[in-house]
Amino acid sequence: MKKHIVMLPGDGIGQEVTKAAKKVLEAVAERYHHTFTFESHEIGGAAIDSQGTPLPEDTVAACKKADAILLGAVGGPQWDHLPGHMRPEKGLLGIRKKMELFANLRPIKGFKQLLHASPLKEEVVSGSDLLIVRELTGGLYFGEPSERRNGGKEVVDTLAYSHSEIVRIVDQAFQSARVRRKHLTSVDKANVLESSRMWREVVEEKSKEYPDVTVEHMLVDAAAMKLITSPSSFDVIVTENMFGDILSDEASVLTGSLGMLPSASIRSDGVGLYEPVHGSAPDIAGQNKANPLAAILSAAMMLKYSFQLEEEAEQVENAVKEVLDARFHTADLAVHDGVEVSGSEMAAKVIEQI
Amino acid sequence: MKKHIVMLPGDGIGQEVTKAAKKVLEAVAERYHHTFTFESHEIGGAAIDSQGTPLPEDTVAACKKADAILLGAVGGPQWDHLPGHMRPEKGLLGIRKKMELFANLRPIKGFKQLLHASPLKEEVVSGSDLLIVRELTGGLYFGEPSERRNGGKEVVDTLAYSHSEIVRIVDQAFQSARVRRKHLTSVDKANVLESSRMWREVVEEKSKEYPDVTVEHMLVDAAAMKLITSPSSFDVIVTENMFGDILSDEASVLTGSLGMLPSASIRSDGVGLYEPVHGSAPDIAGQNKANPLAAILSAAMMLKYSFQLEEEAEQVENAVKEVLDARFHTADLAVHDGVEVSGSEMAAKVIEQI
Ligand SMILES: CC(C)[C@H](C(=O)O)[C@@H](O)C(=O)O
Ligand SMILES: CC(C)[C@H](C(=O)O)[C@@H](O)C(=O)O
Repeated sequence: MKKHIVMLPGDGIGQEVTKAAKKVLEAVAERYHHTFTFESHEIGGAAIDSQGTPLPEDTVAACKKADAILLGAVGGPQWDHLPGHMRPEKGLLGIRKKMELFANLRPIKGFKQLLHASPLKEEVVSGSDLLIVRELTGGLYFGEPSERRNGGKEVVDTLAYSHSEIVRIVDQAFQSARVRRKHLTSVDKANVLESSRMWREVVEEKSKEYPDVTVEHMLVDAAAMKLITSPSSFDVIVTENMFGDILSDEASVLTGSLGMLPSASIRSDGVGLYEPVHGSAPDIAGQNKANPLAAILSAAMMLKYSFQLEEEAEQVENAVKEVLDARFHTADLAVHDGVEVSGSEMAAKVIEQI
Repeated sequence: MKKHIVMLPGDGIGQEVTKAAKKVLEAVAERYHHTFTFESHEIGGAAIDSQGTPLPEDTVAACKKADAILLGAVGGPQWDHLPGHMRPEKGLLGIRKKMELFANLRPIKGFKQLLHASPLKEEVVSGSDLLIVRELTGGLYFGEPSERRNGGKEVVDTLAYSHSEIVRIVDQAFQSARVRRKHLTSVDKANVLESSRMWREVVEEKSKEYPDVTVEHMLVDAAAMKLITSPSSFDVIVTENMFGDILSDEASVLTGSLGMLPSASIRSDGVGLYEPVHGSAPDIAGQNKANPLAAILSAAMMLKYSFQLEEEAEQVENAVKEVLDARFHTADLAVHDGVEVSGSEMAAKVIEQI
């Protein structure tokens, strides 16, 4: 199989973790006789510094021709004072929208070696294995008008969805649930929002096409509670963009291994952008300390979702598990009786297992 | 002091818990020589059943003449099939808006006897004592347009704020912080929303009037994480309506005593509506099992915020602590070596201490 991958290392530790993930992809290509070609482009703060914009044209053009994109992280304090349209995160929002990456998939599953670092009691968190499917290109993030009015006396943002945008994300969630434990929790605020009432109708309608999947509706405030009191009761959660932003970050700290979490942002035809959930961590950038496992697991999601290489993806996931079982860990992870290694050593350990 | 209190028992256990709280208020009146008069009105499902609307005119009229309002809870499965405008929670939203109760205060503080029931590890949750100040009458909850468009092909909700609405809630939060540990966390999504950017500006501007209060800005996704990983790092949190709905419910389960949490929804002149955070719990309604402590602590907030009776409020709070210290508890609370009592017995125990 021949695939072309665009690398967007971005800022801070984004550079080193994407480099590690690329090596893993190269190892997979070698072992399984695929041809992966790579090209690298700027995004975020790095792009602001060198090209004066967080999302240069050539970055967009390259992404449009790619089979998949691997992103590191964007942002850092040196760009925090810049006006809104010149902030690094505009690069991320822009590429999501321009590529129509409407479905953000965030699997959250504890690693037994790391569960002890969870803020939750072990009996509460153990067994948790959930997938949050967040709508990523609609809602409050992109709705118009979003503006001051009346000389600054008023301000509005707009939560807008088209019926078809809701249909496609809900359909994606049902598909995800079907290949997991067949339980879908649709999160909304239907007692307040008209958009949530339409959301609920779409879920009801779609559920007829997936009779094997059980569906439950939950209000967003109730979901924010239940994620903490009973995280293992969820399988797949589907929700709109802003609720998904909040709930997926809430969920990301439950298992005590934020530095291990991958994400995928995909389009209907399978093209996707893969990125670790963690940020750019400027404080440790360039020191070879950063944990590359979230980026490596994001690469595994790429193999699975964009290239349909299920076996290869599993191989990478297993390699990560084996390295953890052997008690190797980076500085961010606390492993009992573990052996601390650098970021590049960690990547090398994973590659050894492939 | 003479005060007139409107009781809105509402649905389910709302009836029994407000009855208990009323008895406590009567005990306070007797001991401190105040005159509290009471009248009771319908709201929510009870009002739908008897008067065909979740918020009858006479309920609104009575509230408008009250010095304070004590609400139980609204809702229940028998009204879940009704159309949006006829749902019990519309009564609650309506009374908040009609009374201009723009500031929702939700204190969250663990009781040491109950902390063991927290989903969080004791070392993570211990020492947590925070106050969430949620804007309650603006934002997505009331913004227009909120409608389907294009024959149902599109839907919009509107997040709208006036500058002055933001100023008054932020000011309230600074005032609350000033009499606590003088630390204010303003939560927004300023990297995406124009309304959040205005919010941030208002906070910056207001902070000049409160030089003794330290201010920090936090993105809502980061706040959703930090509430779990480090709840004790917060003092006062201020945020807009929808973020506040989600974060305050998230925070309410941290200490393991949701059944103990009070809330106040107040107006600039001190008139307020007080209600327990828990719901109507129809499954245990009418069995004298419901824990009245959240309603009783809501009455204590009334004494403090609407009547400025600080000593009396503290007396009620201490009475609750003493009853818990004596290991009395209702069925919902797990207290080591405790004595289980009914709801009315619990109220009587509190009254004994006043
Ligand atoms: C950087 C920010 C705009 C972004 C978002 O809110 O979508 C981030 O929080 C995320 O979840 O990927
Ligand atoms: C019942 C509902 C409309 C309400 C809200 O969202 O404000 C409730 O969740 C609350 O927080 O008091």
